[in-house]
Order: sequence, then structure tokens, then C-alpha cells
Amino acid sequence: MRRPVKVGDVVVGDGALVVMAGPCSVESAEQIDESARIVKEAGADILRGGAFKPRTSPYSFQGLGEEGLRLLAEAGARHGLITVSEVMDIKTIPMATDYIDILQVGSRNMHNYSLLKALGKTDKPILLKRGHSATYHELLMAAEYITMGGNEEVILCERGIRTFENHTRNTLDIAAVPALHSMAPFPVIVDPSHGTGQRSLVPPLARAAVAAGADGLMIEVHPDPDKALSDAEQTLSPVDFQELMSGLLIAG
Amino acid sequence: MRRPVKVGDVVVGDGALVVMAGPCSVESAEQIDESARIVKEAGADILRGGAFKPRTSPYSFQGLGEEGLRLLAEAGARHGLITVSEVMDIKTIPMATDYIDILQVGSRNMHNYSLLKALGKTDKPILLKRGHSATYHELLMAAEYITMGGNEEVILCERGIRTFENHTRNTLDIAAVPALHSMAPFPVIVDPSHGTGQRSLVPPLARAAVAAGADGLMIEVHPDPDKALSDAEQTLSPVDFQELMSGLLIAG
Amino acid sequence: MRRPVKVGDVVVGDGALVVMAGPCSVESAEQIDESARIVKEAGADILRGGAFKPRTSPYSFQGLGEEGLRLLAEAGARHGLITVSEVMDIKTIPMATDYIDILQVGSRNMHNYSLLKALGKTDKPILLKRGHSATYHELLMAAEYITMGGNEEVILCERGIRTFENHTRNTLDIAAVPALHSMAPFPVIVDPSHGTGQRSLVPPLARAAVAAGADGLMIEVHPDPDKALSDAEQTLSPVDFQELMSGLLIAG
Amino acid sequence: MRRPVKVGDVVVGDGALVVMAGPCSVESAEQIDESARIVKEAGADILRGGAFKPRTSPYSFQGLGEEGLRLLAEAGARHGLITVSEVMDIKTIPMATDYIDILQVGSRNMHNYSLLKALGKTDKPILLKRGHSATYHELLMAAEYITMGGNEEVILCERGIRTFENHTRNTLDIAAVPALHSMAPFPVIVDPSHGTGQRSLVPPLARAAVAAGADGLMIEVHPDPDKALSDAEQTLSPVDFQELMSGLLIAG
Repeated sequence: MRRPVKVGDVVVGDGALVVMAGPCSVESAEQIDESARIVKEAGADILRGGAFKPRTSPYSFQGLGEEGLRLLAEAGARHGLITVSEVMDIKTIPMATDYIDILQVGSRNMHNYSLLKALGKTDKPILLKRGHSATYHELLMAAEYITMGGNEEVILCERGIRTFENHTRNTLDIAAVPALHSMAPFPVIVDPSHGTGQRSLVPPLARAAVAAGADGLMIEVHPDPDKALSDAEQTLSPVDFQELMSGLLIAG
Repeated sequence: MRRPVKVGDVVVGDGALVVMAGPCSVESAEQIDESARIVKEAGADILRGGAFKPRTSPYSFQGLGEEGLRLLAEAGARHGLITVSEVMDIKTIPMATDYIDILQVGSRNMHNYSLLKALGKTDKPILLKRGHSATYHELLMAAEYITMGGNEEVILCERGIRTFENHTRNTLDIAAVPALHSMAPFPVIVDPSHGTGQRSLVPPLARAAVAAGADGLMIEVHPDPDKALSDAEQTLSPVDFQELMSGLLIAG
Repeated sequence: MRRPVKVGDVVVGDGALVVMAGPCSVESAEQIDESARIVKEAGADILRGGAFKPRTSPYSFQGLGEEGLRLLAEAGARHGLITVSEVMDIKTIPMATDYIDILQVGSRNMHNYSLLKALGKTDKPILLKRGHSATYHELLMAAEYITMGGNEEVILCERGIRTFENHTRNTLDIAAVPALHSMAPFPVIVDPSHGTGQRSLVPPLARAAVAAGADGLMIEVHPDPDKALSDAEQTLSPVDFQELMSGLLIAG
Repeated sequence: MRRPVKVGDVVVGDGALVVMAGPCSVESAEQIDESARIVKEAGADILRGGAFKPRTSPYSFQGLGEEGLRLLAEAGARHGLITVSEVMDIKTIPMATDYIDILQVGSRNMHNYSLLKALGKTDKPILLKRGHSATYHELLMAAEYITMGGNEEVILCERGIRTFENHTRNTLDIAAVPALHSMAPFPVIVDPSHGTGQRSLVPPLARAAVAAGADGLMIEVHPDPDKALSDAEQTLSPVDFQELMSGLLIAG
């Protein structure tokens, strides 16, 4: 029933666990290259890194822009990794298409129908993140905005929803995995980094997502997490990421 | 402390109640003209009408596009009303700017920072609606994305937030009015139509918003609500709108 | 359609606004007597004061117990005020019945069906507060647990629900007033003190509740709010309460 | 750091997975005996069954009362299973103590401090379920109401929280498991039956809970789920339960 999404040699949704990992933001050539090395070494397949960062405050670090995309692409190529990065608006689609393998729609843009329609005209796989307060139905309707343009290569991503509980950054809705699988043919991955907002909660929730049938994971890792320019608190160190991956690969 | 926003002869935020009203969508020349007549006659100042409709499902009516903007502008001009309509993406800004007096950012786009930044470069007042699950702080940060571009003419709009209660379409957060007033200089209006999703609840909540200090209201009214192509259940009939307005104007 | 609840000379639900006010907790004979004086002088009808306090932490002040009920009753009698206070369990019902005119079920006990059933066997009016995350339907079903015991004197109270917004203590759901009125015959009052958790937001939300058709208000006032043993931040000073009441009575 | 809770031969919180299972309600001698047989055969240790049912509507089936407790105790004894059942108020504590091994506080009673204090004076282990909209902090404070009475045998239970998503009955917050473990010494179990409200989602969420480190599970199973007097939609059949248990025991 699942319709796998193929990107280069990697297939998302065919039963094998696919891990996308890397820093929240691309910060420098060294940082993203070192991240790629860590990601590859730990056994993950896809390198993530933000170049255009949607930040609540306009005064927070907004990313390196095209330079960030270029650095990500180079690091991916050097280490043999597929790349994924967020596109924030229609006008950056051509640029992102030039550099990146998988185009990500962030939570804040899940209802940005103009963007979704434009992505439906590209031939790149789309990673569509669930909105902060979007229902399963709304997430699937957002996917429909993409597929009706002709692009059926959509991967859904559960990344936590907004609730009254504020000990965690969001409430990771693991039930979304089997529920979405029963409702639609798209692969479903889980982002426990944004889903919890806390480093120590990432590994147990990553394992939970896999146990619930997730097709993949998206995890933030940084060579030196405490120096990360964004999302430091939820970013794993190389050692912690390596350890998590070892556990997942043995279990898998 | 309030920084009023002036649009033509209308001032939002100077103590007098400003009412924006009209149909959810512009559907035809007759429908929007008749709507304008009703709105004007009841004593409201601003005509609303959607030309680009952000709909959860891509198969729902999506609006008339530029033709809708033109019809809205003509109806407004004919009846001496200021106009407000939603812009959904950067590329429709120039078109909307040609036709419309106040550019609206809908709930689904409150976190669309590319759009916000572009609107900060226009010289049109912006009506910024609170996102489905946006905190006051996030709404104010979204306003900051606009003002830092140089455009300080921002009007905030509380339109209900998403909660567990599903008897109403949203939970209208009336406390947002005095809270936002205490935090920032922007006028704050309230949309009880989307805020409740039910015709019968619109008048009491409109009155509540005014009692809490709202600078204005945005209300959906249609010549024949049950035939409206969108949001029928929450749209007032001409008679009900007239009655609501009479009560508000007497109280004011 | 409304079924008014009569308590002594006061009728809740007959069109006139009924205000219940007083401190969160009864703290001493002087404090509750002075509170009663303030409440009476400002024109309110009913004196509130907690004797058994349900506190999140077992180490917070838990109330004076029976002594609190006695002091509340004496202060009410001395100043010609009806009294209302919370009962936390079945075994305190007889004691509360001896001293108090209206028995309150707090938010945390809205689903305490054993308590509701026992209150259905008393002949005292019941003030039933909505649970932190109870739907309108669940609130009405809780009222049914009382009325099916034979006691139809139920007053509902909207006091805010739990949402993601944490600037305010709760999100006051003003739409509950007309919605509940349309669904059931019970009077509906609003508690803007717990509903907002912030002193400065109490007056505008009190006015909003009245504008939406509330049959009454429950407001926390204390002779010296900053010294209150509980809920200090949301408690009005005598001067602020007097001012709020003057505005409401003129408007009414 | 974990403080295991010992009940008969079963230890909750020592690293081994403990499964509590059985029907939502005890309905008859045959039904609970057959349930006990199924539970035992599948390898679970503890038999659950409600005798006093807290139902939203007073007109729904309310349980068999003391007769239900007696039948549960007999079925447990016959099949060598520990028993757990809910106490709804102080006055049923002595009765429940006579028959049952673990006393459960349901979600609706998590804030019922009178009940919690009374349970703190018993010598039975307490299974404390998280309230519908209780934070981790509030759940731990509720546990404190029990432990300060001298009874430290508390097991916490995550059973889903109330959110805007209504495809599932609740949103199961799996992050609660590692988060609560890091905050307090109590064992934490998960109830995927109430947490999802859907039969097909129970097994994947049960596996997720275990992967996240849960000390145990509480699962609804019934000899003939479609005939269950309560919670039919979320109750597993004997075959599905057997299959789930096999998978968990192999993994464990």
C-alpha cells in the first residue's frame, strides 16, 4: 500500500529505516563538512541543513541563503550523502532545485498553498512537515496540493504538535505514524528533535517512532551542539548520535 | 499609546469602532455589489471579500483571482467603501496593491516570513491575522517582520485559536485584545465569524469584542448566506448584520 | 427558556447581572469581613471565599476548613450577602450545607461524579465550574449528574480552558456563554479572574462576558491583593473592583 | 534511580515489562473469567477491570459496583493474576482494598485531592493516571498528595492528553515516559487503548511506549470486543492481544 519515494540510491518507505541528520543550520564550510562526516560514519543516508531559516524573531540568525545551499550540496557530494533542505518561498525553488535532492516544506509553511502548488510542478521529492496545529486530514490535503500538480514524491513528517504541555517544545504525536499510513500511501518519517526540543528525549522518542512503524527519522546533530546558532538544546552531539544509530541499526 | 492606522477617511485605532464586512469570497459582480450596498447601508466602513482563497482542500472553490480583486475594488468605489482582501503570496502583492486598500495576511500565512517581509516594503496598511496556534508573542514577532521593512501600518486581528473544543470552529480568545494592547502599539480587531464558525454566535461575540476594547470587527455577511460558496454557516444575513450594527452603533 | 436560580433575594438568570465576589481564600475574620464590606459597598450580591482549597501542590496553603466556612457565613450575614464556597468531597457536604448558600464544584472536580451525584441530593443551588479541558457537552453531562438526583438548581461557570497560549493562565472561552445558553436552560456566569490570571485583564473580560450575555460574574477581590495567600496576581484591589462595578452597573 | 513497586510476585519498574490487561468493565462472571484466561495465557501479569465506571453521561453503563470487584478478585485468584481496578471516591476505598491488589485513580480524578490524600493512608500500590490536560508537573504534584500520606507505592500512567486532533480519542504523549523518569523515581506505564481510542493503533503505540522505556502497559482486551459495554472501539480481540504480546515478549 505504501508508495516508496526513491532518491538516488536511497528509498524511503520500502521497509528499511532511512535517517536524515545534520545541523539545524548550515553555518560554515567546516561545520557542514564535519557534520556530513559524522552523519555518514554513523550510517545515516541523508544530510540535512537549513540555508533559509524561518525564525519566530526577525532578529534571530536567518541562515546563509544560497551560500548555505551550495555548502550543503558540496558536503553531501563529498561524503556520498543525499541532501535535504527547506524552501521558504516560490522564488527560492529554482535555486534549491539546482543544489538539493529533497525539498522540505517546514511546519510554518504547511498551509502555504502557493508554495505547495509550485512544488507540485517540480520533479524533486518533497518532505512535507506537519503544521503546528494541523490535523492528519489537513496534512493530507496539503500533500494533495503537491500531488495534484503531478509530483507524487511526497514524504510526510510528524514533528510534534502544539499543546498545553510546555515541558517539551512540542508534543510528538507518535500515533500519527500508523494513522497516516492507514489513510494514505505516503512514507511517514518522524523528527524527534523538534518534537521534543530536548536532547535527552531525542533517543527514546526516535526509538519509539521506529517501533511505531516510521519509515525514517530526521535528527539534528552538530559537531559541537552547544555552539550551534539555532536549536542547540535539541541537537545531539556526535557521540550521542553515533550511539543512537548503533542501537537503531542493530534493532532494525 | 495606540498608533492609529489611517486608510482614506477611516482611522483604525483612534477609539471609534471600525467595522470591516462582506462575503467570505467575491463570487460575482452582482454578489459583491449587493454586499457592498448592505455593508454601507448598515454603517460599516470597509468592504471585505476574498479573491484568492486558501482552502484546506485543493478541490474547494479557490476564488476568482484578479477578477475578484477588480470586482471588489469596483464595488468599494461605487459605494464609498475602503477595501480589504487577502494576499496569499509574494507574486500577487503588486496586483493586490493596484486594486485594494488594505492587504490581509491570513492565519495560515502568519508564519510566512517571506510574504511578511515583502509586505513590509509596500505602502499599504496590513491586516495581520493571528495563526491557528500562534501565541501573542509570535503574532507580535510576525508584525515585526513587516515593520522592520519600513511599513508600520499594521492592524492585528484575533480570529480564534485551535483548541480541543469542537462545538465552535475555533475558540475566540477575547483576552488577546487587552493583552496585545498592553504589549504593542498596534490596533487590534476581532473576527467573530471565523472565531466561532456559527452564525448565531457572531453577534454576542462581536459585542464581547467591543466591550473588551477591540478597535474594530471583521464580519462575514452575504446577500444570501446559505448560497455562499464558502463559510456559509458563519455568514450573517443582511437583516442580522443590520441588527448587529444598530446595536453596536447605539452602544458606541 | 432560561430557568432562573433563586437564592434568598437574589435571582441568577432572570436578566439582571449577578456578581459574586470576594477573596480566593478566607484567611481571617478581619480579612473576610473587610472583603464583605467592599463587595457589598460596590453593589455585588454574593460573597465568595474558599475554605477548602484544591491546590496543585500539597505544600501550598490549603484553606482554613470548617473555620473558614463559619467566618464566611458570619461575614455574609453581617453584610447582607448570599455566600458561595467550594466543596471538595462528599464528606464536607453536610458541613458546607450548614453554613453556605451556594455550593461550588471547582474545575478539578467537574468530572468527580460521586461528588456531583451527592450534590444532586441536596437542596442547595450548585455552581458548577467547567473543567480545564471539558467540552460544552461534558459540562452539560456533569450538570445532568446533579439534576438527575432531583436538584435542578444548577448555575454553570465558564472559567477558562487550557490551551497552548501561556501568556494568560487560561483562555477564557466567551463563546461558551451563548453556546451553553442555546443548549441548556441553566444560567451561565463567567469567572474572568481564573479565566485570565492577570489583574489588568479582569475588567475588560468581565465587560466582554456581560456583553455576550452572561447571567453573572465571579470575581476575586481582596482588601490587600498583594498579601493574598492564593491567586494574588489575578485579584482586584477594592478600588479597581469598585470601578469595574460602577461601569457594569451603569451599562446594565 | 527508579523505585520499583512490588505487588505480590510482580515488580513494576525493575526493567522487565509488566502488562496489565482486561476489559474496560467487569460485565459478568463469565466475561471476566474468560478475560482472565486470555490475559494469563498471553503472558500478562495483571488483570484489569472496572467496577465503578466514571462515564461522561450519567445514562451510560456505570459498572457492577461491589459485585464487579468481587468477580474481578475471584477471576484474578483463579488464574493467578494480580488485580487492578479504579476507585472513584473515598467511601469505596475500604471495599476496593478488601478485594483488589492495585487501586487505580482515573484521569478524571487526578486532581481529586481528597481521594489522593485518602489513598496515601492505605497500604496498596496506587496506579495514578494523568489527567486529560495535566502537565507533567501537575501529575507529579498529584503523586505527592499520595506519598506525603506515607504511601510511596505509586505507579504513573500516561494515557493520552486532549488536543485539537480528533482523529484519535486522545494524543498519546510518549515523551512523558522518559520525561517523567528524569523528574521522579516512579515507574511509568502507558495506556495505548485510551491513548488512541482505536483498536488498530493500539499495537504500534504499545510497541512505541516500550521502545521509549515504559515500565509497563495497560491494555483493554475483551473476549468479544464488539459486544463490550464500554470502550468497544479501542478494545483488542483475544487474537490481536495474543499477537501483540508475542511480539513484545520476543523483543523484550
